[in-house]
Amino acid sequence: MKSRAAVAFGPGEPLKIVEVDVAPPQKGEVLVKISHTGVCHTDAFTLSGDDPEGVFPAILGHEGAGVVVEVGEGVTSLQAGDHVIPLYTAECKECLFCKSRKTNLCTSVRATQGKGVMPDGTTRFSYEGKPIYHYMGCSTFSEYTVVAEVSLAKINPEANHEQVCLLGCGVTTGIGAVHNTAKVQEGDSVAVFGLGGIGLAVVQGARQAKAGRIIVIDTNPEKFKLAEEFGATDFLNPKDFDQPIQQVIVEMTGWGVDHSFECIGNVNVMRSALESAHRGWGQSVIIGVAGAGQEISTRPFQLVTGRTWKGTAFGGVKGRSQLPTMVEDAMKGDIQLEPFVTHTMPLEQINDAFELMHTGQSIRTVIHYQAK
Amino acid sequence: MKSRAAVAFGPGEPLKIVEVDVAPPQKGEVLVKISHTGVCHTDAFTLSGDDPEGVFPAILGHEGAGVVVEVGEGVTSLQAGDHVIPLYTAECKECLFCKSRKTNLCTSVRATQGKGVMPDGTTRFSYEGKPIYHYMGCSTFSEYTVVAEVSLAKINPEANHEQVCLLGCGVTTGIGAVHNTAKVQEGDSVAVFGLGGIGLAVVQGARQAKAGRIIVIDTNPEKFKLAEEFGATDFLNPKDFDQPIQQVIVEMTGWGVDHSFECIGNVNVMRSALESAHRGWGQSVIIGVAGAGQEISTRPFQLVTGRTWKGTAFGGVKGRSQLPTMVEDAMKGDIQLEPFVTHTMPLEQINDAFELMHTGQSIRTVIHYQAK
Repeated sequence: MKSRAAVAFGPGEPLKIVEVDVAPPQKGEVLVKISHTGVCHTDAFTLSGDDPEGVFPAILGHEGAGVVVEVGEGVTSLQAGDHVIPLYTAECKECLFCKSRKTNLCTSVRATQGKGVMPDGTTRFSYEGKPIYHYMGCSTFSEYTVVAEVSLAKINPEANHEQVCLLGCGVTTGIGAVHNTAKVQEGDSVAVFGLGGIGLAVVQGARQAKAGRIIVIDTNPEKFKLAEEFGATDFLNPKDFDQPIQQVIVEMTGWGVDHSFECIGNVNVMRSALESAHRGWGQSVIIGVAGAGQEISTRPFQLVTGRTWKGTAFGGVKGRSQLPTMVEDAMKGDIQLEPFVTHTMPLEQINDAFELMHTGQSIRTVIHYQAK
Repeated sequence: MKSRAAVAFGPGEPLKIVEVDVAPPQKGEVLVKISHTGVCHTDAFTLSGDDPEGVFPAILGHEGAGVVVEVGEGVTSLQAGDHVIPLYTAECKECLFCKSRKTNLCTSVRATQGKGVMPDGTTRFSYEGKPIYHYMGCSTFSEYTVVAEVSLAKINPEANHEQVCLLGCGVTTGIGAVHNTAKVQEGDSVAVFGLGGIGLAVVQGARQAKAGRIIVIDTNPEKFKLAEEFGATDFLNPKDFDQPIQQVIVEMTGWGVDHSFECIGNVNVMRSALESAHRGWGQSVIIGVAGAGQEISTRPFQLVTGRTWKGTAFGGVKGRSQLPTMVEDAMKGDIQLEPFVTHTMPLEQINDAFELMHTGQSIRTVIHYQAK
């Protein structure tokens, strides 16, 4: 079948809106009609060419919501008409990792997903007879996309797709990092580095966890207003200080914060976040994705004196088991998604969404495949 | 009073055995007659001049056992005749850290201890009228030493000092790291980098915890025999492999080990240890003390895919609360100390103990202040 799609033909090039061919879902696969998709920094990272796993031409996009159109052979957990969110972190419930109950890092489709192909090693997308690669197992920048059954969370059909599509990545990652990775407790102090979609979601998660002080750090003070609405209590612009920001945080808190979160993908900020953590028990969680080959560093003394350095992917959330509940939470208002959606536009304007993100004007732009 | 002591007059110089003057214990202080002391790599590190906190002249030594001779004003928990182990990690039970129940990093005497003085800012040692600095709050290389009350664990008077002095540092650090910091569970896989006293103690701790596979890594295969007696199951000499050792460990285990421990103080080995940890949930604990200014580094991807980087000091053990029980464990044979004591000698030969350590011939040399 034919589908409108925004194709990344090469690194650094604007996406092109073309009509691609989509092959039917194979064994264990599902054809999904995407209704809405967010545009995330990770899409921009891969498009830039800096992502060592990036392959071209590809259909990017990994933060979507849609409806099942058709299921392939052997698919039992979904049927046509089901509302779904595609997952870049699959959940097969059968691999070593899923069975461990210690991590959400399912390996079922990991190897092929990283290469931009379906589990059988081929693609379902093509343009002018040539294959186009998948992206993060989702490819939500195509109106019709083929996704592995293990990579789809079935959600409440009443959910607002324009909003819950954001649970496909940023918001879930931020909130999940607070609850699953850091396990923030009532009264704990928190520092959030970077107030993009993920950072703001961390602030929401921290308020849900009844954190005490929630310190937010960003070089763009325009972000502070929304952070305050979400529950942030202290606002730091590193440009206002001569000292390193970790020193400011340690001084203002006495010994540092119980939990810090890096939500940017900057290895220097990752160090600042770690060194802002409380002596004796503070922990720092890396959420942002750094550029290829970049490394984090610190003095080992920071760890020997009780700080813990962690990371998280998709906020430690097991998509098929836990995302449906998060959708319900959003429908009840326990997770606020609406304030993240600062812009909406049709697929044809998707390059504007990247521009809004790069210039810091948007938190999230959501693409609508159909006019309202 | 007068006391025999091995004094470090300057960085890089051999210790000199002299008779120093020891002033009476002041408020909150205790005069201890040391009967035995181990010689540890940390003493050698400070003596080398590489320790940025090192001050000279000083009386080193921090792994001792002895008997209380006299207590200063206000000391209530100890009296003359009590058997004690000096603690370089105090436990006041009153500071923010002691009260947190999350860490053993008591701050009560931290600031002055790091400067080589007692809490009132002065020293109790002098030689030819000039002050000599304390070391790590212990200075067990003097037969008579003055220690803060909060820095003394009262132990069973029946304990064998030649052995339990090792609980003042290395053995407690290794065993504590397994139970308090890593919290190794039955069946978990473990990798131990470096088979000095601490590494061998980690192996013992891992066996206590009923770990499954216990992989030990050392460039000196002579260490493997004792590691095997303590419970190690796999033995790796990095010199036998062309690939990085972390790659060897990941391949032999499938995805890495549940827990790894760096017991050397080498920042490159710290990285290897982290990267040997299991994707999804593996954790790596830094125990070794690196040289001044040295930094650890890795790709943040290692953490984002579920590894945790931690450190530990004195194995997370709260000395006054927990060390007495560990002494009992040693007396019952649940902790084996005897195999660590490869050499004993009088104080006069202490420079030989450093030489034995540097050449890898000893695990621990224990100094006897009195002839047997």
